[in-house]
Amino acid sequence: MANSLDEFFRLMREAEGCEVQTIARLDFHREGRNGVPEVIMAEGKQPDDTVRIVGAFLEAKGRALVSRVGESLLARLSAEFPDHEFDMFSASRMVVVRRPGLKRPTTGGKIGVLTAGTSDVPVAEEARVIAEEMGCEVLTAFDVGVAGIHRLFQPLRAMLEAPVDAIVVAAGMDGALPSVVAGLVDVPVIGLPTSVGYGLGGKGVAALMGMLQSCSPGLTVVNIDNGIGAGATAALIANRMAALRQKAKAAEGAKP
Amino acid sequence: MANSLDEFFRLMREAEGCEVQTIARLDFHREGRNGVPEVIMAEGKQPDDTVRIVGAFLEAKGRALVSRVGESLLARLSAEFPDHEFDMFSASRMVVVRRPGLKRPTTGGKIGVLTAGTSDVPVAEEARVIAEEMGCEVLTAFDVGVAGIHRLFQPLRAMLEAPVDAIVVAAGMDGALPSVVAGLVDVPVIGLPTSVGYGLGGKGVAALMGMLQSCSPGLTVVNIDNGIGAGATAALIANRMAALRQKAKAAEGAKP
Amino acid sequence: MANSLDEFFRLMREAEGCEVQTIARLDFHREGRNGVPEVIMAEGKQPDDTVRIVGAFLEAKGRALVSRVGESLLARLSAEFPDHEFDMFSASRMVVVRRPGLKRPTTGGKIGVLTAGTSDVPVAEEARVIAEEMGCEVLTAFDVGVAGIHRLFQPLRAMLEAPVDAIVVAAGMDGALPSVVAGLVDVPVIGLPTSVGYGLGGKGVAALMGMLQSCSPGLTVVNIDNGIGAGATAALIANRMAALRQKAKAAEGAKP
Amino acid sequence: MANSLDEFFRLMREAEGCEVQTIARLDFHREGRNGVPEVIMAEGKQPDDTVRIVGAFLEAKGRALVSRVGESLLARLSAEFPDHEFDMFSASRMVVVRRPGLKRPTTGGKIGVLTAGTSDVPVAEEARVIAEEMGCEVLTAFDVGVAGIHRLFQPLRAMLEAPVDAIVVAAGMDGALPSVVAGLVDVPVIGLPTSVGYGLGGKGVAALMGMLQSCSPGLTVVNIDNGIGAGATAALIANRMAALRQKAKAAEGAKP
Amino acid sequence: MANSLDEFFRLMREAEGCEVQTIARLDFHREGRNGVPEVIMAEGKQPDDTVRIVGAFLEAKGRALVSRVGESLLARLSAEFPDHEFDMFSASRMVVVRRPGLKRPTTGGKIGVLTAGTSDVPVAEEARVIAEEMGCEVLTAFDVGVAGIHRLFQPLRAMLEAPVDAIVVAAGMDGALPSVVAGLVDVPVIGLPTSVGYGLGGKGVAALMGMLQSCSPGLTVVNIDNGIGAGATAALIANRMAALRQKAKAAEGAKP
Amino acid sequence: MANSLDEFFRLMREAEGCEVQTIARLDFHREGRNGVPEVIMAEGKQPDDTVRIVGAFLEAKGRALVSRVGESLLARLSAEFPDHEFDMFSASRMVVVRRPGLKRPTTGGKIGVLTAGTSDVPVAEEARVIAEEMGCEVLTAFDVGVAGIHRLFQPLRAMLEAPVDAIVVAAGMDGALPSVVAGLVDVPVIGLPTSVGYGLGGKGVAALMGMLQSCSPGLTVVNIDNGIGAGATAALIANRMAALRQKAKAAEGAKP
Amino acid sequence: MANSLDEFFRLMREAEGCEVQTIARLDFHREGRNGVPEVIMAEGKQPDDTVRIVGAFLEAKGRALVSRVGESLLARLSAEFPDHEFDMFSASRMVVVRRPGLKRPTTGGKIGVLTAGTSDVPVAEEARVIAEEMGCEVLTAFDVGVAGIHRLFQPLRAMLEAPVDAIVVAAGMDGALPSVVAGLVDVPVIGLPTSVGYGLGGKGVAALMGMLQSCSPGLTVVNIDNGIGAGATAALIANRMAALRQKAKAAEGAKP
Amino acid sequence: MANSLDEFFRLMREAEGCEVQTIARLDFHREGRNGVPEVIMAEGKQPDDTVRIVGAFLEAKGRALVSRVGESLLARLSAEFPDHEFDMFSASRMVVVRRPGLKRPTTGGKIGVLTAGTSDVPVAEEARVIAEEMGCEVLTAFDVGVAGIHRLFQPLRAMLEAPVDAIVVAAGMDGALPSVVAGLVDVPVIGLPTSVGYGLGGKGVAALMGMLQSCSPGLTVVNIDNGIGAGATAALIANRMAALRQKAKAAEGAKP
Repeated sequence: MANSLDEFFRLMREAEGCEVQTIARLDFHREGRNGVPEVIMAEGKQPDDTVRIVGAFLEAKGRALVSRVGESLLARLSAEFPDHEFDMFSASRMVVVRRPGLKRPTTGGKIGVLTAGTSDVPVAEEARVIAEEMGCEVLTAFDVGVAGIHRLFQPLRAMLEAPVDAIVVAAGMDGALPSVVAGLVDVPVIGLPTSVGYGLGGKGVAALMGMLQSCSPGLTVVNIDNGIGAGATAALIANRMAALRQKAKAAEGAKP
Repeated sequence: MANSLDEFFRLMREAEGCEVQTIARLDFHREGRNGVPEVIMAEGKQPDDTVRIVGAFLEAKGRALVSRVGESLLARLSAEFPDHEFDMFSASRMVVVRRPGLKRPTTGGKIGVLTAGTSDVPVAEEARVIAEEMGCEVLTAFDVGVAGIHRLFQPLRAMLEAPVDAIVVAAGMDGALPSVVAGLVDVPVIGLPTSVGYGLGGKGVAALMGMLQSCSPGLTVVNIDNGIGAGATAALIANRMAALRQKAKAAEGAKP
Repeated sequence: MANSLDEFFRLMREAEGCEVQTIARLDFHREGRNGVPEVIMAEGKQPDDTVRIVGAFLEAKGRALVSRVGESLLARLSAEFPDHEFDMFSASRMVVVRRPGLKRPTTGGKIGVLTAGTSDVPVAEEARVIAEEMGCEVLTAFDVGVAGIHRLFQPLRAMLEAPVDAIVVAAGMDGALPSVVAGLVDVPVIGLPTSVGYGLGGKGVAALMGMLQSCSPGLTVVNIDNGIGAGATAALIANRMAALRQKAKAAEGAKP
Repeated sequence: MANSLDEFFRLMREAEGCEVQTIARLDFHREGRNGVPEVIMAEGKQPDDTVRIVGAFLEAKGRALVSRVGESLLARLSAEFPDHEFDMFSASRMVVVRRPGLKRPTTGGKIGVLTAGTSDVPVAEEARVIAEEMGCEVLTAFDVGVAGIHRLFQPLRAMLEAPVDAIVVAAGMDGALPSVVAGLVDVPVIGLPTSVGYGLGGKGVAALMGMLQSCSPGLTVVNIDNGIGAGATAALIANRMAALRQKAKAAEGAKP
Repeated sequence: MANSLDEFFRLMREAEGCEVQTIARLDFHREGRNGVPEVIMAEGKQPDDTVRIVGAFLEAKGRALVSRVGESLLARLSAEFPDHEFDMFSASRMVVVRRPGLKRPTTGGKIGVLTAGTSDVPVAEEARVIAEEMGCEVLTAFDVGVAGIHRLFQPLRAMLEAPVDAIVVAAGMDGALPSVVAGLVDVPVIGLPTSVGYGLGGKGVAALMGMLQSCSPGLTVVNIDNGIGAGATAALIANRMAALRQKAKAAEGAKP
Repeated sequence: MANSLDEFFRLMREAEGCEVQTIARLDFHREGRNGVPEVIMAEGKQPDDTVRIVGAFLEAKGRALVSRVGESLLARLSAEFPDHEFDMFSASRMVVVRRPGLKRPTTGGKIGVLTAGTSDVPVAEEARVIAEEMGCEVLTAFDVGVAGIHRLFQPLRAMLEAPVDAIVVAAGMDGALPSVVAGLVDVPVIGLPTSVGYGLGGKGVAALMGMLQSCSPGLTVVNIDNGIGAGATAALIANRMAALRQKAKAAEGAKP
Repeated sequence: MANSLDEFFRLMREAEGCEVQTIARLDFHREGRNGVPEVIMAEGKQPDDTVRIVGAFLEAKGRALVSRVGESLLARLSAEFPDHEFDMFSASRMVVVRRPGLKRPTTGGKIGVLTAGTSDVPVAEEARVIAEEMGCEVLTAFDVGVAGIHRLFQPLRAMLEAPVDAIVVAAGMDGALPSVVAGLVDVPVIGLPTSVGYGLGGKGVAALMGMLQSCSPGLTVVNIDNGIGAGATAALIANRMAALRQKAKAAEGAKP
Repeated sequence: MANSLDEFFRLMREAEGCEVQTIARLDFHREGRNGVPEVIMAEGKQPDDTVRIVGAFLEAKGRALVSRVGESLLARLSAEFPDHEFDMFSASRMVVVRRPGLKRPTTGGKIGVLTAGTSDVPVAEEARVIAEEMGCEVLTAFDVGVAGIHRLFQPLRAMLEAPVDAIVVAAGMDGALPSVVAGLVDVPVIGLPTSVGYGLGGKGVAALMGMLQSCSPGLTVVNIDNGIGAGATAALIANRMAALRQKAKAAEGAKP
């Protein structure tokens, strides 16, 4: 079980003897360590750099996840990797490029993703995509915020019955939904504040602060608009649970 | 599995018919919903109110967890409940009052608690106490921050081998430790910023912001000094894992 | 109906001819203008000044409302005005001093006051006291916050059936309750953030921001811990409604 | 009178049995609960989504209120709903789409809307439009701020004589006007800070803080630029008053 | 007229040849440069240091101005300089120590000092004392804030007729008074925000921001609670005016 | 001397009888009250409104000052008022439109305007233009900041010898120059922070805070980029001084 | 050794006699004082001004460093100074223009420049360019942040063996790398926060705060994105060391 | 030269095999790595813990540096280590405990420490003490801030002639002094903001921001009141320079 640390020590020992390179060092080992694939943030990178990094990931892993992809970059990527498969997610502007024939993994893990409003959907989609790429099944329900709180209960019931092992709750404005959800369920809830909101406390600040102030145990948070982080953590938890569940099932199935 | 929600609907139906009371309403059902006992924050309450609430919890549950307990309140509680057992935690000023003979639960869940410095220990203790009261075994290692990062690896290895299912990492100042830990392990990490620090970004603000900015997936955070929330969430995850592990083990043991 | 403005113009005309005085000018006319009695904030004033101002109000109006009253000041006031009646409110440290025999007014107005937690009670009490001094009946329900939201409905139903014409909702931490209440009722809701909370967004900041971000129409807010302002505004609305209601009733009663 | 809550409980019971849908859930019941129509914020929504939601509202209610409407969206809406009536408000970029022949409601409620400067007019217009759509008559006076405070009195007198039952006061920069108005009148005043201002405290921050600090009772506030919220709350109050006034009048009229 | 700069160059030339001293360097020349006496801030200094510096000023100038003086320090100063005259100002805790027989200067300059509330008086007193020590006559009017704005006009008229050449306006909370005053008068107004206020924008922040946002020309500001700076600047302006006025009068008087 | 107040009372009395108009109320009397012409901020206004207001000012006063004028608006104004004279200031984008033949006033007042860097020049130009339109002569020296402080002294000497009666010092970044200047001269200094700067404390925040913290008496400040306010206040002071100087001179000249 | 101060006094004496010029004063002496060439920030300057200042520097020094250069300005500069050499740095948009044949200086100084991520490279390049123009050799290693901390050690070893005399460490997000590096090395480390990051603590704020909170001695910081300042300070230190090293070597070499 | 890194790798290899201890881990190796002794911050630690840690340091190193020492702790330490030597620094409340006979090291390094005001002296003393304990000679000059800038030059000249290799400049309020000093000298300057200041930008915030905004190259900063960090970095630089200087001198002296 301590393999992620062993891996680190191996890398450290390598570090004592390797060559200096003044180029960007890609960390292909990260996924090995905790199962979370690196996401290439296209925003703020030169298109050339993004293309080069995508190429390196495709060669090493057969898959590259790119976020905040504009139209021109998408065209460029399509031209550069013409024989690859592209999964495009328009709300969040994420793109998954895949070596032909490479399947998305399935772990049996299940998570839920809720949003308070429709404007929170793009960020929630980031959480969904990364979780799916980590092998999870993702149940979603959007626009179920506290202003019309009666709409929340049916989807929540479905999630608890699936069962999901973690729920991501995206909310902007006053960010009250994650706290309400965490008070109702017995699985860990990850609050995902979104940059929806205006005036004082706008751009997600009130949402984040509200989640941090919440007295609901079981609720932790990530930064504003960090859909990737929220989805990856939820999937990390769900995948560990799924592995155990399968082990239990296997043991049970082995019974005569 | 959807019992926490069913419980809520039952309470709602009760709500339609119950009597009005203009007094503090104690929520004894919360622990039933997600397994997290309510902690009575003594700070900011009148001693009379605290004593009354503690008494109500003792009667209903046999146990009361009180945080931020000053010396005079402790004396008062000892006098009021003379035949009860008191577990006192001096660093965090927490007190657990227990009906004589009542045992702390054990679930088989295991979590880790790390601190970057010695000043972070009181907040970390809150996390440890709540997790233990939720039935977990807690492995701790204090003062292993990035300034002397070589001290981190041995305790971390021990935690991964236990294995723990979640790690709480308390850090003040620049709050860099949770990010480093989350980069090394494959279990969920809960960043717990502490109000240690001075000048710009002091009182935990830089620590919290740093954790939110961290690009390590698997890391979520709670508010500054919220040891209760961090410990409860970690225990929630670990207890769910432990239940599955025991189920798997039972199934395996049942094999002929 | 424009009498408050006429009053102002009268004062302005007086201003053109009056004498200069370099002492604190007491505004006995304010209550005449909008029915809200001035509250003397003892905190930050010299005891001598407070006593002098209380004396002036007692002489002019027969009543003085004093907030944030410490024990020594209370003793001092009792000694200075020995034959007066004192209503003391320990949670909020408010004191109402009354000329012997002077009755509290009754207008028939009704308001509701809710709190999310027990720590919000002192601020809520300020709202209750000022409203009662303005002649309102005040229905209260404390500790009905979103973490245990099922406790909210029964008191709320009672308030709507009274009926109250405005509801003050005091909440600290994430301040989510006013938004939830405003989504459920058809009377104006006044959000009253309290300085309960810690870490980022603490001291009422997250609560205030959350209420400002709320998308529930019908919700307006006052500053952190401004119980006086919240209660006075609620009473202002309720008293206007009560006057009309009595007029309607009178007219109806007059029918043969 | 408790019908808004009954409605909520009915929805809750429905929630226990309804189908899961992972699409935006439109809340047609909200207007039923407190009389405030939902406003569709076009900004931050895909045009397709906005058109779809407008269509749904038109079908269910015969009317759709859309805010922050750009020119291309307006053209699109006109094309999609060619036989409908469009009320366009250029300053605030609001649009009200109405089924042919559908009349705007009239309740007899009256409110006032003031602005400190001409730059505050667009936000004030939002307040006016929502109030008119809720059936109120709206008296307005713009650019009457404290820098030339003598311009304030005449319009204020007219409002008090109407009489209005609530006044919305929009102000940016130092936001001093709402406090001045609340000191002069005996109706509730809703401070509406606008994002007018520059440098330190700019974008409405100083205006909002100033209103929160104001010691004028009867003054409550909404968030920066939240014209909808301010207007809706004012109309909510005025409509309740109007209903009573009409009842009184009817009773009086019924007298022989 | 350029003497303050000449003085600086003289000091600079001295600087090239003088001895090093690692002790606090007292700047007795400052008053020579712009007529503003240095004020010794006792708060944050060791009593020994304060006594030593007061002694040095008394020897060099015959007068020492000390601000934020506690009772024990006052006793100490009285004991150290027994034959000196002490002017004590209890609200602001300022003390002026004077060589026996030394008269306060008189320049003929006149300034006004206004406060919005009684809590602003201590800070305003600092402004008054420094201005008087610079030789000005100071007209004051306290508690004339916007909540009861009709109380403002009479004192303001008296100031304009004196005439004063600058007006200091101290205000906490929303800080609206300086802006109103600057809109009414044709002399420069110095806004003096005070640390009166609570919640969001409290401790003078809203007051300072409001003054900075004000669109009234002729208004400049100093930092929160900087009564010394406000009073000194007002006196600087008034003294320059007084000198010219006397020159004009003298010239006129010299006419046959 | 109290004429500005008398004017106000006259307006107030008018206010009791005038007609309601729901249009922008132009305040042509302001210049009468304290000699500062109103500046029309074009930014944030509709071009139609700006043109209308400019027209009104030209008719009433023969002159209109417009700030933040873009190219298209300038073209529009030129077309609308073809026979008028236009003074255009490209750095600050200010425009003064004047009735043909109307002279700029001259009062004999003199002020200085300094900038720390070249990027501060546009804001300083606003100060210069308004002061010149108020009749002052303006001495300027740009880019004399503390990084090369030796460049400051010669221009400062020239200003003190003119003599100027007030100095505006514009500075961004750390905003240290106004404090240095105020320590060297015996005339009032108006600190004008500019939105030059980056990172923490950028956009003028550090500059403004530094000026507020400065311990140099004689220094007051205006908000970030408020060149109009700084220049108008400086000119207000200088014009009062100039009037007295001329009176003195006249008296002297009258001597036989 | 005190020559930089002597130079200052010489300039001061010149200042007493020189002519007034109301134009931007170029400070060609600065490089003489501490060896750091002035960098012309093109952003926020009119192209005409930039061209003029570049021309002046080229004439006086033969070299001009320009930062934040856009494409059109670059074209303009190329056209204006056709016979000069241009070094262009695309990531940071810096340009060094040089008189033909003028060599970059070499001092023997050596510094290191590290970045945590690839997005920090543009700011790091600013540091590299200024250091090289000051004569230093610069060793670089990019994308070696704490998320994959094993990548750090090899480049760091190379730097320590060079040896470098100062290391600039650029980091955005949580800004943890400088602290880690300062804990590992015995040369001064200059933390360079970059405006990389999002949500709370974004745009470099968390990075800067984290570096300020760091408990690693030997670490100092500059403002967000101030690559010029970081590189110049590192080079200043390295050049002083290099001079001594050469002196030691020379002395050693002189030994028979 | 790479010994600090080698030391780290040695510790890492140890880490793979060492025992777990859940107690505070003292880092005696840090001084070996970069020559900066660890300072024990007494504030926020239990006296028992401080005594224990001091004892451990005395045993391992013969010396312990303790900061923020209160009177009772000092008495306790004196009693616990009766035969040791105590250097006490009253302004900064630092204490150095030394094994009898142990000498303070001397490296030949020289640094300068300046303060803007007398209130900055305690923080500056921290810088001096740590630098002296690292073997440096420290030249100091206090109260030489920009308000009386002529007092700066003589001490600065003495420092440059010593010569010092780094200068720490402590300043609160507007924090302008470090920028001025960095513009005058050719050695690295470390800005040390102190928590002196009030109102907006108080407690060192304006001072820190001003230093960060400064355009003087060669200036870097530490956090507010971080005298230890500033002094240690300056000494680190000076000691490296001193080593080279001695080497050069030795080589020179070796010449025949």
